[in-house]
Amino acid sequence: MLNNEMMKHLKIKNPIIQAPMAGGITTSNLVAEVSNAGGLGMIGAGYQTPIQSREQIREIKQLTSNPFGINLFVPNEFNVTPDAVQSANQRLHTIRKQLHLEQTDSFDIPEYEKIYGSFIEQVNVVIEENVSICSFTFGIPPKEVMAELKQHNITLIGTATTVREAVANEKAGMDMVVMQGSEAGGHRGNFIDGHQESLVGLMSLIPQVVDNVSIPVIAAGGIMDGRGLMASLFLGAQGVQMGTAFLTCIESGAHKVHKEAILNADEDQTTFTRAFSGKWARGIKNKFIADMSEHELLVPDFPVQNLLTQEIRKTCSGQNNQDFMSLWSGQSPRLAKSQTVERLMNDIMSEAKINLHLLTQQLTAL
Amino acid sequence: MLNNEMMKHLKIKNPIIQAPMAGGITTSNLVAEVSNAGGLGMIGAGYQTPIQSREQIREIKQLTSNPFGINLFVPNEFNVTPDAVQSANQRLHTIRKQLHLEQTDSFDIPEYEKIYGSFIEQVNVVIEENVSICSFTFGIPPKEVMAELKQHNITLIGTATTVREAVANEKAGMDMVVMQGSEAGGHRGNFIDGHQESLVGLMSLIPQVVDNVSIPVIAAGGIMDGRGLMASLFLGAQGVQMGTAFLTCIESGAHKVHKEAILNADEDQTTFTRAFSGKWARGIKNKFIADMSEHELLVPDFPVQNLLTQEIRKTCSGQNNQDFMSLWSGQSPRLAKSQTVERLMNDIMSEAKINLHLLTQQLTAL
Repeated sequence: MLNNEMMKHLKIKNPIIQAPMAGGITTSNLVAEVSNAGGLGMIGAGYQTPIQSREQIREIKQLTSNPFGINLFVPNEFNVTPDAVQSANQRLHTIRKQLHLEQTDSFDIPEYEKIYGSFIEQVNVVIEENVSICSFTFGIPPKEVMAELKQHNITLIGTATTVREAVANEKAGMDMVVMQGSEAGGHRGNFIDGHQESLVGLMSLIPQVVDNVSIPVIAAGGIMDGRGLMASLFLGAQGVQMGTAFLTCIESGAHKVHKEAILNADEDQTTFTRAFSGKWARGIKNKFIADMSEHELLVPDFPVQNLLTQEIRKTCSGQNNQDFMSLWSGQSPRLAKSQTVERLMNDIMSEAKINLHLLTQQLTAL
Repeated sequence: MLNNEMMKHLKIKNPIIQAPMAGGITTSNLVAEVSNAGGLGMIGAGYQTPIQSREQIREIKQLTSNPFGINLFVPNEFNVTPDAVQSANQRLHTIRKQLHLEQTDSFDIPEYEKIYGSFIEQVNVVIEENVSICSFTFGIPPKEVMAELKQHNITLIGTATTVREAVANEKAGMDMVVMQGSEAGGHRGNFIDGHQESLVGLMSLIPQVVDNVSIPVIAAGGIMDGRGLMASLFLGAQGVQMGTAFLTCIESGAHKVHKEAILNADEDQTTFTRAFSGKWARGIKNKFIADMSEHELLVPDFPVQNLLTQEIRKTCSGQNNQDFMSLWSGQSPRLAKSQTVERLMNDIMSEAKINLHLLTQQLTAL
């Protein structure tokens, strides 16, 4: 059995982490099923209140006795003026009109301090509820937070997009690091390097990172099956984190319209946009991305734009209208299937085994 | 020994193709050494005259008795007005001034028909000189050209960037297809899909293409060593095509400044530009790319812009000045080494063998 450092540390049987997709996708059932199948289920707690996180942790513990983890968004400071918020809001007027939504002009933009306070409360929930694994996106928590978590023996996983960011994670004390290739769907995890610089494909990214850090590296982006798993291991990763592949599973809480969009998409139909949230993210092209493309660089930073578009996204979900929903997806939608987590996990591991056997036969006399 | 369909067809011992980099990089020595080491050396004949191609083919035959190949650019029609050429030229005035070059206002823009005629002459050279393998970039030759080459039993290799383009290559009768991932350095080979759509990372691209074509698939982009080779094979490719890794070899004809730039670069220092040639290409960021970024979308199509910048690039080469040279590179420059082709080839194959052995041991009881 494969039993590398990452697997030992996480106490998992298969080197597969379910990506902590935020926004209701990682239902307790999804997380528990992944852990029950020998992988690592992860709660995407980025948009949860501390109370919601606590409830879900308790719920998952009823569904699995295997380890699972939780992901928190590290708050980033943002700079917005009321004027900028107002003009960003006005740019959404045409879309609201199409959806017969009332125009709003006043927004309750939260202060960074409040967001940071909520982050600390979530950290406390993780500690109090004895979650053994915690990963972070959008940066590295402050030293004192890292120290507190380490004192409670919580395994810490960082997210990075370049060698520089991977090294920063290692230096800050992360036990392992998820490397997000340019193939990955959803929000980009770059926090030191710019968006364009951070777009490195996994074939290039993994070997260059492995050569420059000592902690285990986890590959993320476009990995959907046993082929991607084995390729990642040969590049030097100790495991994979998969998002899109779990998103279309029966147990995932993703909207059916979102699942259908992925199941019907081709590899060249995703694009990057920051129009939904103020952070760059990869999703399937739709009307919202097209309509907003000219304002793309003008929208206010995350999480402000995310708040401004919230009602639009919610209304569309209710109407099963994919035009203005965020249809996050990696670059391998042709490989997505509608199936159970158990089936997906079994297929990945048996495909990996078969391919290894076949190639070993071909290569024995190499 | 690995002996898949691609290797049998190409009559090579190791599943490694040296990318046909145009512009003097693929010296006869480089091509012959790759073939002598059991890979497939390739002449990058994109900018050669038919006479030059014929001479190089004859020269290489003196240096190796193993198979080698040649790559031709499929001519694309372009649309430029004299006015557009003049304003594109004026945008280069500041740069010419810095290099103390005389300002030119008249350019001999070749007609498409003339370029196409030269392409047909090159095809005839390939046939007359009995080159057994011919690959194509920037499109698929017309039916009659494909038929003529096939009649002479020449193995035909297409280049594609998406599933749609791979299928088009198969339908046109290509024997195999090189899939260029977004990691790849130099010119993009997209010819049906747009530039942005064509940027799919290899981790996503290879499995999705393999599922949709029957001809052998060759992975290209960011592959530098045994790790990349094994990853590509597990994704479903039958071999790899490597550019940057061969570019910094002793035998390559790349300018020493170009080699040094790659050897000193990080994974996040390349970018896409169309300012050098009128076609999108990935290279290391320099002054020219930065200075031209605002005119990027305005420059005339390939090969017109390539002609306009020719003297600037040539002058900079003569002065060992990297500011205005095209420093093409894939996304893995940290893995580049200055070494002989023989050493590179040996290292790739032994690393592949060792990694397979190690992972097989770890995975036996999977």
